Amino acid sequence: MNARALCVIGLGLIGGSLLRAAEGAGWKVRGSATSEADLIAARQAGFDVTSSIEDALAGAEDLDALVVLAVPLPAVADVLPVLARCAPRCRLTDVVSVKQPVAAAVAALAPSARYVGGHPMAGRSASGWAAGAATLFTGAPWMLGCDDGADPVVWAQVAQLALDCGAHVVPAAAADHDAAVARVSHLPHVLAAVLASVGADGGPLAMALGAGSFTDGTRVAASPPELVRTLCEGNRTALLAAVDDALGRLGAARGSLASTGALKATIRAGHLARQSFDAARTSAPSEADYIDLTTPEAFARLRALGRQGGRVIALHGTRCQATWAPQTSEGP
Amino acid sequence: MNARALCVIGLGLIGGSLLRAAEGAGWKVRGSATSEADLIAARQAGFDVTSSIEDALAGAEDLDALVVLAVPLPAVADVLPVLARCAPRCRLTDVVSVKQPVAAAVAALAPSARYVGGHPMAGRSASGWAAGAATLFTGAPWMLGCDDGADPVVWAQVAQLALDCGAHVVPAAAADHDAAVARVSHLPHVLAAVLASVGADGGPLAMALGAGSFTDGTRVAASPPELVRTLCEGNRTALLAAVDDALGRLGAARGSLASTGALKATIRAGHLARQSFDAARTSAPSEADYIDLTTPEAFARLRALGRQGGRVIALHGTRCQATWAPQTSEGP
Repeated sequence: MNARALCVIGLGLIGGSLLRAAEGAGWKVRGSATSEADLIAARQAGFDVTSSIEDALAGAEDLDALVVLAVPLPAVADVLPVLARCAPRCRLTDVVSVKQPVAAAVAALAPSARYVGGHPMAGRSASGWAAGAATLFTGAPWMLGCDDGADPVVWAQVAQLALDCGAHVVPAAAADHDAAVARVSHLPHVLAAVLASVGADGGPLAMALGAGSFTDGTRVAASPPELVRTLCEGNRTALLAAVDDALGRLGAARGSLASTGALKATIRAGHLARQSFDAARTSAPSEADYIDLTTPEAFARLRALGRQGGRVIALHGTRCQATWAPQTSEGP
Repeated sequence: MNARALCVIGLGLIGGSLLRAAEGAGWKVRGSATSEADLIAARQAGFDVTSSIEDALAGAEDLDALVVLAVPLPAVADVLPVLARCAPRCRLTDVVSVKQPVAAAVAALAPSARYVGGHPMAGRSASGWAAGAATLFTGAPWMLGCDDGADPVVWAQVAQLALDCGAHVVPAAAADHDAAVARVSHLPHVLAAVLASVGADGGPLAMALGAGSFTDGTRVAASPPELVRTLCEGNRTALLAAVDDALGRLGAARGSLASTGALKATIRAGHLARQSFDAARTSAPSEADYIDLTTPEAFARLRALGRQGGRVIALHGTRCQATWAPQTSEGP
C-alpha cells in the first residue's frame, strides 16, 4: 500500500482544494475532471490531471492510491461502474455530502471497493477549481464513516488525509451523519432560499434596506442552485424531519406573536442554542483519550465519541487520539 | 439653528457609533447614557457625556442641537416626557428600528418636537459602546421618514448627518419601512433563532458538524436576546405578514420534497432573489436626479424614489441628489 498516493475524481471546489491541500502535505496526487475549465486551471497550477476517469483510475490501481470521489451526487452512479472495472478493489472514500446514498451506490455498483465514506464540512458560495484553496479544510470538521464493517486500514488512511489537510475527524455512522447535516447544512440552505424570496417579495425598498442580518441569512442562497438542490434532495428523509422541526418552531413563534405579541421563547431558545454551538467550537478540548482501530469495539467507540461531540485530532499508528469539547450546561 | 450640533440620547452600539462618526465629520457632539459602562467608556474616549438626560436635553436646547433618540424601543416612552419638558420644540430624529411606534409615541408624548424618523441599517451581534465604531455606518443604508408633513429643514439636517457618517439615505414612509424591515431585518432574526434551535436539537454531533452555512445562518442569534425580542415584537403586524410568507414558502417546500422529492422551485427562487439583492447593492447607480425639498411634492417624490430602490447620495442646499440601481430583469 502506498500510504500517501491520492487520486481525486472531480476537481471542483472540494476536489480541487483537496488536490492542493494533499500535495502541500506531501501526498503524491493525481486527478481527473470532466469540466474543461477545471482541467485547464489544474494543469496551469502544475497538477497531473486527465479528462479520462479510466486513465486516472488505472493509474490509481498501478500506484495503489487512495481514490476520492469528489463529484456531485448524481454523477456518483456514473463513476462507480468505471471504478469497478478499472480499480475494483481500491481503497475508496468520498467527499459527497450525504453518506447513506453513496454507501448504497458503492455496495451496488462497486461492491469490492474498500469504501469508507467521508464529508469535509467546508464550502463556499462559489464553485469550481478556481474557488478552491489548499487552506479550505483548515480547522474544519471532516466526518468519517464508522459503520460496523469499516476497514480499519482504509479508515486510518482517510483519517490521515483529513488530518494532513488541517481538518479534524468527526466519526459518525452514515445515518447519524445524514440526520445531523440535514439540520446544520441542508436546512440552512432551504431557510436561506425562503428568506431571500420573502425579502425580494418586499420589493426594491426591502432590497435597499437589507443589511447584515439579511446578507448573512441569505449568503448560501448565492451558491449554484443545481448543486444545492442536489444536496438537499439527496437527503430527503432526514431533511423532511428537519424542515418539520423548523415549521413547528416557526409556527409556534407565529402563534405566540399573533396571540400575545411575545417572541421571548423563540428568541431565547435560539440564543441559547447558538451559545452552545459557539461553546462547542471554542471550548478547550478535554484531555485526550485513545481508541485503537484494531480492537473489536473501535468503531462503536468512535460512533459514541462523535455522538458526544468528540473528534479525532491525531493518529499514532492505529491509535486515534480523541478529544471532545465540554458541553455547556445552559444549552437547550 | 446650529447645523452641526448633535445630542445623542443613548450610547450603545448605534448611539455610541453615531457620536464617534459625527464628531469625526466635524459635528459638535454631546450625549447621555444610563449605562454606567457606556458612560465610562465614552468619557475615556474623550467625549462630553452625562448620566442625566435632563442635562443633556437642556444643553441641546441651549445649543439648538439636533437630538437623536438612540435608546431601545421600550425606553422611548420614558425619554420623550423629559424631552417635552426640557427641549419641547427641538429638532428630533431617532435610530430605533421600527418607525410607526416611535412616530406615534412622539405625537403623543412630545407633540411639539420637530420629528423626522430615521433608521441606519447597520449592526453587529455585540452591543454597547465598546462594540461601536466611527465606521459603523460607512456604506450603510440609512432610512429617513418621508411621510407628508415632515419638516424639510429637519429632514435636510438629518440627511446631512447620515451622509456625513458615510451612509446613504433611503427615503420611505414609516409604514413602508416597517413592512420592509420585517422582511429583511426582523424575519432574519426569527429564522436564525429557529435554525439555531433545530440544529441544537440534533445534539452534539450536529453541533460538531455545523460549518459555514449554519454559522452564517445563525449569526444574529448571538445578538442580545432582549434587544432582538424588543425589535421584533415592536413590529408585530408587519412581522406576522413576513412570518406567514415564510411559513407558506417553507410549507410549499416541505410539500414538494415530501411528494415528488423536488426542491427546485424553492432553491431557484431563492437564488434569483439573492442575485437581485446582490445586483441592487453592486450595480452602478443611474445618473443623478434632483429633488428639491422646498417643493410641495418633494416627500411624495422621495417616497416614490425609495420604493424603486433609490437613494439620496448628496445634499446641495435644499436639493437632494438621488440615484437608483437599475433593477435586474431576472429577479422574481
